[in-house]
Amino acid sequence: MKILVPATSANLGPGFDCLGLSIRLFNSTIIEKSNFFSISVYGEGSENLSLKKNNIFVSIFNEFYERLSGKKEKFRFIFENKIPLSRGLGSSSAVIVGAIGAAFEMAGFKIEKQKILNEALKYENHPDNIAPATLGGFVVSVIENESVFSIKKPIDENLSAVVAIPNVFISTDQSRTALPSSFNLKECVFNLSHSSFLTACFLEKKYDLLAIASKDLIHQTCRMKNLPELFEVQKFALENKALMSTLSGSGSSFFNLVYKEDANYLKQQLEQKFKNFKILVLEFDNKGFEIC
Amino acid sequence: MKILVPATSANLGPGFDCLGLSIRLFNSTIIEKSNFFSISVYGEGSENLSLKKNNIFVSIFNEFYERLSGKKEKFRFIFENKIPLSRGLGSSSAVIVGAIGAAFEMAGFKIEKQKILNEALKYENHPDNIAPATLGGFVVSVIENESVFSIKKPIDENLSAVVAIPNVFISTDQSRTALPSSFNLKECVFNLSHSSFLTACFLEKKYDLLAIASKDLIHQTCRMKNLPELFEVQKFALENKALMSTLSGSGSSFFNLVYKEDANYLKQQLEQKFKNFKILVLEFDNKGFEIC
Repeated sequence: MKILVPATSANLGPGFDCLGLSIRLFNSTIIEKSNFFSISVYGEGSENLSLKKNNIFVSIFNEFYERLSGKKEKFRFIFENKIPLSRGLGSSSAVIVGAIGAAFEMAGFKIEKQKILNEALKYENHPDNIAPATLGGFVVSVIENESVFSIKKPIDENLSAVVAIPNVFISTDQSRTALPSSFNLKECVFNLSHSSFLTACFLEKKYDLLAIASKDLIHQTCRMKNLPELFEVQKFALENKALMSTLSGSGSSFFNLVYKEDANYLKQQLEQKFKNFKILVLEFDNKGFEIC
Repeated sequence: MKILVPATSANLGPGFDCLGLSIRLFNSTIIEKSNFFSISVYGEGSENLSLKKNNIFVSIFNEFYERLSGKKEKFRFIFENKIPLSRGLGSSSAVIVGAIGAAFEMAGFKIEKQKILNEALKYENHPDNIAPATLGGFVVSVIENESVFSIKKPIDENLSAVVAIPNVFISTDQSRTALPSSFNLKECVFNLSHSSFLTACFLEKKYDLLAIASKDLIHQTCRMKNLPELFEVQKFALENKALMSTLSGSGSSFFNLVYKEDANYLKQQLEQKFKNFKILVLEFDNKGFEIC
């Protein structure tokens, strides 16, 4: 069995812990029953020995497999990871969603994405990455009674992502504690109105309003101070055909959305100016995780 | 010339100062050139003498007419007001939008709704009522550089509003000062996620999720304490087929959204239980103000 889980970009500016979308950059995991446990890691994280010893995917998979099948069994795991670690592109969510999805499949259960999403919420208590990793597309979510309620909209074919990945990371925990503890009414209204408006831009395909819609007063400035070059990346991207340019999750990557025909132009411009960043042009994913 | 401006319900729970919709309950104003100024008020406000002396509609109309035409002239105004005053149903916005729209028409200008909306913002610095009063439908708005940016979606024919109007009012100013001065991250995220999700519910016609989507942590509880019976109205409405039940603007009315076939049932139930409230079943408006 092979499971593919896409990268995700969350928050999208104002939609803190709520909005996210899915990108065609996949972690692939092959799982086979075996006489002995083994694990191979290729791609992102392959140089990291701890990923072989205390592998979170394996722990979550085993926990679910045992719970669902009532059996302890041994598996061979082959990871081929394309999602960079700790760069705000949903690598943790991909692990959680992938492990739970794979366990349901291997234990012979029907894949019910809503159920898998609710299980994933127990491991990551905000739905903004796990929801698009599960469902694909642009997703807006709320939590009610420890369950995720989501509305998904496929993203247009004529749009691309241009992701700028710096060679340093910001940890989510560090990034989260950097946030202010309270916000005034103006800040609160700013974010709720912009997040709602951004949702409408995606749902009604009003892409030319995304630059206005994607402004934020809650988290970006605060987090970007950890890597001030990001302010320049954002300004430069918006001056070079990006329809929106937002910190991806808690960083350190920047997510830029462009019309497909402008993607390579923006990539080249960013590459010339920001030598410490890897620039990827990627398509959007509208399916969420897939079992092949 | 006759101008019709609809009532509006703003906030819709979490969408403070951002979301609003338009309801088919109109203030009608007839304006004719005349040798002398005169004013007649019928309907809501007709017993209020100050509306004849310091009429805000007339002041705004005259200001714009003079600015646009370069002339001071005399008019006869006949108001037939159906929107209750100070009940959170957008009566002030209807006056502002109506006066500006009428002045453009009477001065011989083409009606450009976006321009009128931006002018209206100078009189009411939040767009959640003036936007649907101008455009009709469900509207999500942000302010950027003192202009309103809105996305509008027509509301389905199979939905109705059941509005519960108490016989007392809460003034907007009083209601606004009652709000807390700061909010924690959890409250902020709650409202931004619910407001975004509510927007998606309207845009994607997911009406059965409105009860979850329409929850709020910023303003409703605080304001409803001024009239505690409103907590019962809300609970009772949600138990009696309301898809959502939210404080209309800053109150004192309650806005309930129902499937059309349930409207009279909810009206009867509310009338039996809440004798101090006037209950109106109303259709939604998808046009905004109209000049006839």
